[in-house]
Amino acid sequence: MSTLPQKESRAPTTCVGLASTQGLDSNCGDGLERECSRKLGQKLPELCGVGDPTTTFSSYSSHLSSRGSIIKWFWDTAEEGYRGYLMDAYDEDKNPKLSQSDMLRVEPSLLQYPDWRGHLFLREEVARFLSFYCKSPSPLKPENVVVLNGCASLFSALATVLCEMGEAFLIPAPYYGSIKQHVYLYGNVQLVCVSLDSEVTELGTRPFQLTVKKLEKALQGANSEGVKVKGLILVNPWNPLGDIYSPRELQEYLEFAKRHELHVLVDEIYMLSVFEESVRHHSVLGLERLPDPQRTHMMWSTSKDFGMSGLRFGTLYTENQEVATAVASLCRYHGLSGLVQYQMAQLLRDHDWINQVYLPENHARLKAAHAYVSGELRALGIPFLSRGAGFFIWVDLRKYLPELTFEGEMLLWRKFLDNKVLLSAGKAFECKEPGWFRLIFSDKAHRLRLGMQRVRQVLESQSQKAEDPFSCQTQEPRG
Amino acid sequence: MSTLPQKESRAPTTCVGLASTQGLDSNCGDGLERECSRKLGQKLPELCGVGDPTTTFSSYSSHLSSRGSIIKWFWDTAEEGYRGYLMDAYDEDKNPKLSQSDMLRVEPSLLQYPDWRGHLFLREEVARFLSFYCKSPSPLKPENVVVLNGCASLFSALATVLCEMGEAFLIPAPYYGSIKQHVYLYGNVQLVCVSLDSEVTELGTRPFQLTVKKLEKALQGANSEGVKVKGLILVNPWNPLGDIYSPRELQEYLEFAKRHELHVLVDEIYMLSVFEESVRHHSVLGLERLPDPQRTHMMWSTSKDFGMSGLRFGTLYTENQEVATAVASLCRYHGLSGLVQYQMAQLLRDHDWINQVYLPENHARLKAAHAYVSGELRALGIPFLSRGAGFFIWVDLRKYLPELTFEGEMLLWRKFLDNKVLLSAGKAFECKEPGWFRLIFSDKAHRLRLGMQRVRQVLESQSQKAEDPFSCQTQEPRG
Repeated sequence: MSTLPQKESRAPTTCVGLASTQGLDSNCGDGLERECSRKLGQKLPELCGVGDPTTTFSSYSSHLSSRGSIIKWFWDTAEEGYRGYLMDAYDEDKNPKLSQSDMLRVEPSLLQYPDWRGHLFLREEVARFLSFYCKSPSPLKPENVVVLNGCASLFSALATVLCEMGEAFLIPAPYYGSIKQHVYLYGNVQLVCVSLDSEVTELGTRPFQLTVKKLEKALQGANSEGVKVKGLILVNPWNPLGDIYSPRELQEYLEFAKRHELHVLVDEIYMLSVFEESVRHHSVLGLERLPDPQRTHMMWSTSKDFGMSGLRFGTLYTENQEVATAVASLCRYHGLSGLVQYQMAQLLRDHDWINQVYLPENHARLKAAHAYVSGELRALGIPFLSRGAGFFIWVDLRKYLPELTFEGEMLLWRKFLDNKVLLSAGKAFECKEPGWFRLIFSDKAHRLRLGMQRVRQVLESQSQKAEDPFSCQTQEPRG
Repeated sequence: MSTLPQKESRAPTTCVGLASTQGLDSNCGDGLERECSRKLGQKLPELCGVGDPTTTFSSYSSHLSSRGSIIKWFWDTAEEGYRGYLMDAYDEDKNPKLSQSDMLRVEPSLLQYPDWRGHLFLREEVARFLSFYCKSPSPLKPENVVVLNGCASLFSALATVLCEMGEAFLIPAPYYGSIKQHVYLYGNVQLVCVSLDSEVTELGTRPFQLTVKKLEKALQGANSEGVKVKGLILVNPWNPLGDIYSPRELQEYLEFAKRHELHVLVDEIYMLSVFEESVRHHSVLGLERLPDPQRTHMMWSTSKDFGMSGLRFGTLYTENQEVATAVASLCRYHGLSGLVQYQMAQLLRDHDWINQVYLPENHARLKAAHAYVSGELRALGIPFLSRGAGFFIWVDLRKYLPELTFEGEMLLWRKFLDNKVLLSAGKAFECKEPGWFRLIFSDKAHRLRLGMQRVRQVLESQSQKAEDPFSCQTQEPRG
């Protein structure tokens, strides 16, 4: 959730607080596929989102290639949501950790072409860091680490080195919509959704439960359409749901992947943002035994857990040396400064500060913000998933839709935007049920109050449906 | 030129001195094309280089896509040259400019998702910097600037947004060989060589003279083979020759491009590394009138002129907002840290330091190193091009080849390597005449002495041909 200034367009947009924005979700619309498929020789992956539905991709530029036009389109259509946030200045306390004098070191070696996998001193630190925080059964190795400028780049590189053009990854939906661009813009790789729904049909399961049966069905569906699937993407903790896979679930999905010789990309970018004491995250690197270690690739970054998306640091951990090497080869295009590599090593090495200062404070703030927003939602009678991880709450606003369609969802999204509060609508996550929204709560209390006030205004102005047969129950964190 | 330790493989490799290494040239061989063309559906661009000729691209990985295997291959085959340099530690004085206390600033906005074009404060500084150093007739504009993590990324992004897969750029050869990978690995764009030769046939021209007639011929050749050419790449000052285009030449090439509606990518990465007082570089941004401003794109970086290839900073200047936007959209994969953006703005803003301290010292060192190496070459009776710009001398070793073929060139290259001195052979630059080598002189005096001693040892051990019908005269800088 981002609250925008109401009167004065130059006033600061309030946005995410402790951590980075979740933007770029609301920048694609259905017009693109229609228009592009005609021109492009290859099949364009299905693109979806909550951009302005009147926006169609009608004008190819005389100066750009067709893919260049598509790439530019993704930028242009971000205007209304993410761009509004970007136009505003930010006002926060300085980060004392990164400002410490030991954070600036300029050794000549840091200014020369590096090993494109990343400087060894940093890869050693990353291996130690992941060994500790992922609770790996044995120490992780620096030679399995490749560092680069963020997980967006990592998706791009992995898609390119694992898939031929037009091949695909499976991904449970709803999912963080930008991944589609990350694997497509350079890699020309598609996503095949494992579409999940909110209805709970079996005992012991939860809304949007991923099961092996559903994975099998989605894979079969892709195969029958002639789409070659090369891997499975799991985001754990799960953006936008906040769900965390249990070790048993994770193991089952990995076994499924092994049976079909699929790579598994496990994005654990929120692994340290688990703020409920009763909830535990289990990293794929913490499993006693990986079914197929050569096809299991873990990714992490400081963008979310350390609230530093602008620092551009991400890392791959894989035992597969061919994959590590191929990704490193592409790191010429995803390299990060030697000076930043030094800073990251300094940051990651300081487990005392992370454990005793940073994480307790970060978790306490996330918990308080989550408690406030979920309390407000309860007071409004709005069902939502409450998971205790991540920066977002997945909210069921189906009863507020003027009609139970994605057009209705878009109308409500625009109502929020007109009232200067930016939510991400379910369509941007390829949610198959219209009416779900992702609400980001990782912000300062006064901004959340303002934001929730605006949310309330919008919802109260909507004529509520008398009946509400769709909504699922609020789900509290599992013990 | 890089001198490697002779006895102890762990001892430091001496390499480029004032500035960054020119590596990655010696990492491709002819086996790749043969093997890949069979498997890949699309035509693989002709790949060439000075890698081990026994290396063939015979093993596709079971875990990688075919393009992933190619990408990995580029890494693996760099082993012998560039990798040898990487394995060694570096020993230089610290850089006092970047270590100044005002270089570390941690504002929250620097840690958030940036405008992907780059922070405005940096783009403003880049525009001022380029206005001054490129002598632009009117002030350059921040909205035409896109910053990213290096010129390698910029080639990748421009290739992708300007060309369809399989389309091509023209490039005068010999050229910096890595550009081929930069436009191909992600973009699937080819290079079409405008192959130049050393013979001087017309008055007022020089060896490897580029002319519009040759450009027309290369374009026609590509067209007749069904290859669609979308642009022309000019590297000015020219790597590996050190040549600088006169304003009139530049204007002619731009007019040629305009006639054929070709984009022109002008890579001026060595624009401040002109160390002979009698030589002047003329930037494309300094021309009074661009024939086709919407198709003229200038690139620059701090990697060479400030000897900071590990800092990962490059910039695009283009008046074409569609191109700027499309490149910015890809900058999600080429972003550089907000902290580095701040440092770069601080560095580029300090014209006094650059003019009065940095450039005079850098030019004096480059000039002294060039004088020493060219003196040694003259003493050895080796013809070479002496240009007064860049970090390299283009050296004619044809009379030392055991046979006048690329196999002979490779044998000599290996002789140098066996004697622990790394030169780049002409094949890596797609030079059409075997026997040319690029020798890097931007290093400290004691390393250059050692390197030249080893060069001399190798050449003296070669049986010189009695006759020398091939060599061209040493060319001194033009007045």
